[in-house]
Amino acid sequence: MAAVSDSRGMNPEEIEAASFRIIDEEAGGHDWSPEQWPVVRRVIHTSADYEYLQSLVMTPDAVTAAVTALRAGRSIVTDTTMALAGIRKDLAGSFGCRLSCNVAAADVAEAARHEGITRSVAAMRRACRENSDGIFVIGNAPTALFELMEQVRNGTCLPALIVGLPVGFVGAEESKNALASGALGVPFITNMGRKGGSTVAAAVMNALLLRAAEA
Amino acid sequence: MAAVSDSRGMNPEEIEAASFRIIDEEAGGHDWSPEQWPVVRRVIHTSADYEYLQSLVMTPDAVTAAVTALRAGRSIVTDTTMALAGIRKDLAGSFGCRLSCNVAAADVAEAARHEGITRSVAAMRRACRENSDGIFVIGNAPTALFELMEQVRNGTCLPALIVGLPVGFVGAEESKNALASGALGVPFITNMGRKGGSTVAAAVMNALLLRAAEA
Repeated sequence: MAAVSDSRGMNPEEIEAASFRIIDEEAGGHDWSPEQWPVVRRVIHTSADYEYLQSLVMTPDAVTAAVTALRAGRSIVTDTTMALAGIRKDLAGSFGCRLSCNVAAADVAEAARHEGITRSVAAMRRACRENSDGIFVIGNAPTALFELMEQVRNGTCLPALIVGLPVGFVGAEESKNALASGALGVPFITNMGRKGGSTVAAAVMNALLLRAAEA
Repeated sequence: MAAVSDSRGMNPEEIEAASFRIIDEEAGGHDWSPEQWPVVRRVIHTSADYEYLQSLVMTPDAVTAAVTALRAGRSIVTDTTMALAGIRKDLAGSFGCRLSCNVAAADVAEAARHEGITRSVAAMRRACRENSDGIFVIGNAPTALFELMEQVRNGTCLPALIVGLPVGFVGAEESKNALASGALGVPFITNMGRKGGSTVAAAVMNALLLRAAEA
C-alpha cells in the first residue's frame, strides 16, 4: 500500500487508475451490473464514501438512456453552478450537448421575486420550458427536484434522464423518495437518504459522458 | 418531524435554519468551541455526514486568523473551479477579497507541459507566487496541497490560512496528515481520513465569510 499511496510522482490518470483498483478491491461483492458499476465507482471515488454502494438507485435503463441522449446532443441542465463547474465540458462539447444553469440569471431572480418563489424553483421552471427533453442534474436543492417532477407531471417536459441527488436535512430525502418511486416513468439515478451533493451529481454525469464516449 | 420536513413552502433561509436546528439536536455533546461550531455545522449541513464532527481538525487560531485575513481583503485561491463556484462571491466581494483558480488557465497548462508537472501543481505554484499571503482552499487535489506545503517551506508564500480538504483514495489522507502535523506553523482547517471535497471546502469558506461579516 505504501507504494500505491505515494501519489506525488503519479499523473492524474495513474492516480485515478490506482484509486479505482482500491475501490474495486475494497467494495467486494455487489449486485451492480458491468454497465452500472462505472457510475457507482466514480461516485465512491468522488466522495470516498462506500455508503453509495448501497444507497444509489437507478432504473435499469438509466445508463442506456443517458448514453443515447448524450450522443444525440441533448442539453444538460444543472441546479447549481458547482455541479455545472464539475461536469466535463470537453466531453459534453464533443457530443454537442449544451450545458446550462439558470440559477444566477438576472431574469430568474426577477421572476422569483415577481412570483414569490425561490430562485431554484424559478430556474427549474425556465429550464423545463427551454430544455424539455434534456438531462436534468440536481445536486443541491430539493425544491428544484420537486419542481422538476411537478413539471413532468404537468406535461411541460419529458427529461431523457433525471440525476436527482440533492443533499441535506430538510426535503432532500423526501424528494429522492418521490423520484425513486418511479411514478414519473422517466429514467433516473438517485440515492436514498440525506447524502448527495453537487460533486456526486457531477461524478454521475462524468461517468455517463465517459461511457458515451466509448466506442 | 413531518412539518419540519415539508420544505416546499419554506424559503432557503427557513430551510437552512431548520437544518441547523436538526444538526444542533442530532450532534449532541461535542468539544467544538462557540467560534468553531458554525464551521463544523456548515460542513455537516453541506455533506449530511456526521463523521466530520469527529474528523475535522483546526488550529485554535484558525477562525480568528480567517476573519482577520478576510476583513483585510486577502485573496482567496482555490484548486478547483467547483470550490470557486461554491464560495459566496457577494461576501468575498464585500471585503474586497479577490477569488481565483488557475487550474484552467492556458498559461498554466503550458507551464505544466513544459515542466512535466500536473496542471494542479503548476496552478498552485503560480498561486503561491501571486498570492503569497492569501487564503488557500484545496478541496480536491492532494498534489496541490503537497505543492503548497512545499512552497511554504521554501519561503515562497506564507498563507493566512490553509483550508486543506482533498478527497480520495491516493494521497489525500497523507497530504492532510502532513498538514495536521502543524509543522508549517500556518493556521489551518483540515480533516482526517479520505473524505473531503470541493463542496466541503466551500462550506468552510462560507462559514468563515459569514463569521467575518458579523458585527
